[in-house]
Amino acid sequence: MMMAIHKGLEHIEVLLLDVDGVLTDGSIIYNDNASETKVFNSKDGLGIRLLLDAGIQVGIISGRRSNALKHRCQNLGIVHVFEAVSNKADELNNILKQIKKTAEQAAFIGDDLPDLKLMKKVGFSVAVANAHEILREQADMVTSAKGGEGAVRETCEAILKAKGLWEKTLERFL
Amino acid sequence: MMMAIHKGLEHIEVLLLDVDGVLTDGSIIYNDNASETKVFNSKDGLGIRLLLDAGIQVGIISGRRSNALKHRCQNLGIVHVFEAVSNKADELNNILKQIKKTAEQAAFIGDDLPDLKLMKKVGFSVAVANAHEILREQADMVTSAKGGEGAVRETCEAILKAKGLWEKTLERFL
Amino acid sequence: MMMAIHKGLEHIEVLLLDVDGVLTDGSIIYNDNASETKVFNSKDGLGIRLLLDAGIQVGIISGRRSNALKHRCQNLGIVHVFEAVSNKADELNNILKQIKKTAEQAAFIGDDLPDLKLMKKVGFSVAVANAHEILREQADMVTSAKGGEGAVRETCEAILKAKGLWEKTLERFL
Amino acid sequence: MMMAIHKGLEHIEVLLLDVDGVLTDGSIIYNDNASETKVFNSKDGLGIRLLLDAGIQVGIISGRRSNALKHRCQNLGIVHVFEAVSNKADELNNILKQIKKTAEQAAFIGDDLPDLKLMKKVGFSVAVANAHEILREQADMVTSAKGGEGAVRETCEAILKAKGLWEKTLERFL
Repeated sequence: MMMAIHKGLEHIEVLLLDVDGVLTDGSIIYNDNASETKVFNSKDGLGIRLLLDAGIQVGIISGRRSNALKHRCQNLGIVHVFEAVSNKADELNNILKQIKKTAEQAAFIGDDLPDLKLMKKVGFSVAVANAHEILREQADMVTSAKGGEGAVRETCEAILKAKGLWEKTLERFL
Repeated sequence: MMMAIHKGLEHIEVLLLDVDGVLTDGSIIYNDNASETKVFNSKDGLGIRLLLDAGIQVGIISGRRSNALKHRCQNLGIVHVFEAVSNKADELNNILKQIKKTAEQAAFIGDDLPDLKLMKKVGFSVAVANAHEILREQADMVTSAKGGEGAVRETCEAILKAKGLWEKTLERFL
Repeated sequence: MMMAIHKGLEHIEVLLLDVDGVLTDGSIIYNDNASETKVFNSKDGLGIRLLLDAGIQVGIISGRRSNALKHRCQNLGIVHVFEAVSNKADELNNILKQIKKTAEQAAFIGDDLPDLKLMKKVGFSVAVANAHEILREQADMVTSAKGGEGAVRETCEAILKAKGLWEKTLERFL
Repeated sequence: MMMAIHKGLEHIEVLLLDVDGVLTDGSIIYNDNASETKVFNSKDGLGIRLLLDAGIQVGIISGRRSNALKHRCQNLGIVHVFEAVSNKADELNNILKQIKKTAEQAAFIGDDLPDLKLMKKVGFSVAVANAHEILREQADMVTSAKGGEGAVRETCEAILKAKGLWEKTLERFL
């Protein structure tokens, strides 16, 4: 994971995340009583905390709605959560206004076709390793990890490194 | 996934799906209180929606019964759901009558021996990558993805491409 | 999976199964309220049904206790279920007496050290692909599939083939 | 798994374990009602029991809090459980005092940055196969198994072998 520093990531001030297939491996888990279960990743969780601690915002933008997601966001301190978004690209301006950032300052990680328009609008676009091939072709960066298996963490560290914040972030663990 | 266009798929008007091992990875998940949990795949879900949006019908035909499946079908807009079917091939005529399609217009994805007879009756038969070897030998197409890991999505896109509907489907995402 | 016919399997009249790591991938799933969840495999399930339909008995022998297991056994028609067995080898005689079979007529699939003594007592011993190395060295057969990923199914088909019952079993699916 | 005997492990009297990513594969599983589910591994469980039976202590030290973890520890007979520990290295002295062991006598298995300081304080440090690269570089041993897939079991057997207790441990299974 000795990755090169990605040009463009140094200006990022907010990381926007799709949920199913990005923060999870794409599993849609239904129980008999209609409740849902979601499987997140502890390494992604630490990456998000490190970003927030370094003053970089994190936002969630999902086409679906899930209480399990809300619990995870609360746990991680993510306050910008946009659910049941039918057209993610259309919602971008509204989201950025709330976070007080420009599209140029935003990075976004996606995995499937509904993420495509949004990817083209942000300053830096990321596709997970197992994203749809069209996304992988058009993204500024493709993670080596699959969704739900550390793709978010990989992106968080790439942002911190590109912004020269990685050494300072590591310090408290050494 | 630069797949060739499969001869025979161009006539398909309805896609019939087995559940365990096709829409899931074959996991049968029991909780202590006898309730069941099912794990579906978000990429398969989008594939099914794209098919339905393009006017191609989707039906479920399962040997078991599951409330979790019902919730998923409701969520995806699948209205033709046939559960606890002891002999899938015998049920085909009844299903096709309801959907108002012929066997020639139907494709079916299966993974194990109870799917074999049905596979032989439809216009186009698909086996998932990890289907029983007898099914893989007899299917018109074997997906590169395993059941629950995108085999359904792969088939949905193959149908849309064979019918010349893929470009129009992609348009709304570009 | 064009496997050779295993010498010794032709005399088998009952298949005994360990649970965690054999019928499952070894996951021990706890929920906050202390209930447990178990993940079985649909292909294993069909293998067990085919065995029972062919008149070969199936028994469960587990060191732990689980309601989820009971539901799965009920669902598959397995009536010989022995749970919370602290010493599996000691329990064998009791089990065989109930099933009215001899040790020579029994096959057993195991994955870890507590299965070792029992493996040595039965007529035919099977280790799953990811069993402890000591079991893999001593077993009469090592499956190519891991526990929970079809190791039981593979063994069921091997028994039916060795006993010359496979063609008849297949017939109803053709 | 014919591993060499690791120098340093022969003095170990207590094994300390991180939870997420070590005893599990790092999955953080939320249900809609905010309850959590944790997936442990049966092979790890036997490894822990074998250590305890051989008179070696086992302790848990986690940054999070989970009822599911408590049930698993109760089930395995682990009495030293430290949860919601914000700074694991700072807590080490308190833990060792309760267990009545020195840092030199302690081994620790970790997977991510919050484990780094603690790894440097104990007599023997272990990183799981898929630990953060910085941990893998600094650990005394890197397991061949990933977290949740047998990394703990591998370490337990390595300790028993290094201390010359493996033959005696195996005896009861032969």
